[in-house]
Amino acid sequence: MKVYHLYSGGKDSSLAAWILTRLGYEVRLVTVSFGLLDNWRYAREAAQTLGFEHEVLYLPRGVLEKAAEMAIKDGHPNNAIQFIHEKALEAIASMPEVERVSDGTRRDDRVPFLDLPKARSLEDRFGVAYIRPLLGLGYKTIRELTEGLFVVEIRESEELQKADYEVELRHMLREKGIDPLEIFPKRHYQSRVLGWREK
Amino acid sequence: MKVYHLYSGGKDSSLAAWILTRLGYEVRLVTVSFGLLDNWRYAREAAQTLGFEHEVLYLPRGVLEKAAEMAIKDGHPNNAIQFIHEKALEAIASMPEVERVSDGTRRDDRVPFLDLPKARSLEDRFGVAYIRPLLGLGYKTIRELTEGLFVVEIRESEELQKADYEVELRHMLREKGIDPLEIFPKRHYQSRVLGWREK
Repeated sequence: MKVYHLYSGGKDSSLAAWILTRLGYEVRLVTVSFGLLDNWRYAREAAQTLGFEHEVLYLPRGVLEKAAEMAIKDGHPNNAIQFIHEKALEAIASMPEVERVSDGTRRDDRVPFLDLPKARSLEDRFGVAYIRPLLGLGYKTIRELTEGLFVVEIRESEELQKADYEVELRHMLREKGIDPLEIFPKRHYQSRVLGWREK
Repeated sequence: MKVYHLYSGGKDSSLAAWILTRLGYEVRLVTVSFGLLDNWRYAREAAQTLGFEHEVLYLPRGVLEKAAEMAIKDGHPNNAIQFIHEKALEAIASMPEVERVSDGTRRDDRVPFLDLPKARSLEDRFGVAYIRPLLGLGYKTIRELTEGLFVVEIRESEELQKADYEVELRHMLREKGIDPLEIFPKRHYQSRVLGWREK
């Protein structure tokens, strides 16, 4: 039972990956890149430290272009992040060998988040099962599980070296002469997993 | 990390209990009864077969009375089931020793189901974490996991001897001279776990 898990190297997607292994799945981590930066390497490092298989899936740069335009038009990144996330899930789900797709989205997330019709649509269009191990967990539960499992580094998004697609989105905004700080929330903390707390 | 898990003896609540143990929780199963019937015994049997601690929590019969009135007024059981489920979660969450409450509700369930504001309200009012291990799983994933884990008996609701509070609701409707088949869907399948497929 192999599952392809969208992975950023952060604590949520790492916790979701761990839960999948506990349920008996063989987990393959997939990090999305647009080829603009090589920040996918931080996800690979985390994956290797945690002992997971890892691959990079390149998405067309046009997806990132369109996301950047959405973020500029909206003045905030929510729709852009949602758009990239959906494209990433669709790209994984469309690989012929893939029967199960998963991610680390949480109950309390506003974006990225697939509502029930979108989740079912993803499953139906691509003939996959879409698994979200964190969807039924609140922040307290996620905190107690991650604190027990991982050594985590938490920093403001602008400072943290991470494989989230937010990093390439910020980069593209800068390339377009836009300061990402005008679009992204000022104090937005991100996490990166450095390893297991204990094995 | 002890969690009190609302348990009917069916495959969903059994799968959720198993997932909780895989996440490192100490799981105590709780079956709700109104003292009308002793069908909680089917949940206890399943709990013992699976090796879980189990207790029965009696709710005031007035809750079932009110649910029966709702079902009769509505002509279908959805609001009644939802009402009982919320009262059951609140009763567990209000026990002084309880820090975590869980159930086996699924992504694809219409009732019983707590939407995000209701889930957060339960957590905030009682100072608990509310955990739903199946919320991020679709029917395919639930099927492949339960088929691998449990021997399950599946029958129409009217025939199956089970600890679901639906059974006492049907009984109370009959006591009021109402045929439950006029209110519950005609072909509504329920499951009961008979044991582990293999240990």
